[in-house]
Amino acid sequence: MQEPSIFTRIINGEIPAYKIYEDDRVIAFLDTNPINEGHTLVVPKKQVDHIWDLEDDDYEYLWKISKKIGQHIRKTIGSTRVGVIVEGFGVPHTHVHLVPIYNTDDFQIPKKFKADEETLAEIAKRLAM
Amino acid sequence: MQEPSIFTRIINGEIPAYKIYEDDRVIAFLDTNPINEGHTLVVPKKQVDHIWDLEDDDYEYLWKISKKIGQHIRKTIGSTRVGVIVEGFGVPHTHVHLVPIYNTDDFQIPKKFKADEETLAEIAKRLAM
Repeated sequence: MQEPSIFTRIINGEIPAYKIYEDDRVIAFLDTNPINEGHTLVVPKKQVDHIWDLEDDDYEYLWKISKKIGQHIRKTIGSTRVGVIVEGFGVPHTHVHLVPIYNTDDFQIPKKFKADEETLAEIAKRLAM
Repeated sequence: MQEPSIFTRIINGEIPAYKIYEDDRVIAFLDTNPINEGHTLVVPKKQVDHIWDLEDDDYEYLWKISKKIGQHIRKTIGSTRVGVIVEGFGVPHTHVHLVPIYNTDDFQIPKKFKADEETLAEIAKRLAM
């Protein structure tokens, strides 16, 4: 059996969280190290590390609820946009970051890969589906 | 009528792109200013600025195809994870960034909001659904 993640422990009520939404399949609470005010994590109750490994049904439900919460945050916080990040290196339990954002600097991410046209064409060929 | 976005012009074949997937509702092509090799944009063919304003059906389909492409990129590129970003300040036409990532530095985003417990509790109260 896998080790319960910190999010599973929140779901089980063993660790407190600033919860804003909960139903039988998904929970949402504030990120305590926020990018901006209102930064929220939406978490499926089933503990699966990578988002792409969620079962279709759980995956679809996660995004359905994320839309509801994203619209709610935008309206309540009044931010220009509500952005989305999924990465997952911190906690091996799928979570969608919903972050109120105001300008392009809020998600400033270094571009590490310098791609010329030839390289892009070659990658596109490898990735073509 | 709204101005056609650069993505609509790609969809219409007026501008070239490094396309990796296309069906009647969604297109995916390489970001030409990539965070990492294999960085892909998944774009609904209907031009809607904010992802939260997509109709439910288009929104669900976008994430369904993003899962398919995310799994495909992870397998083909062999990255540790494939992360997700949605922000939208650059082009006012919904697009999901799918980015091969290898460690937590790949999505290093400055934390601009210093939140103490009291502030978090107050925000959670405002956002509670």
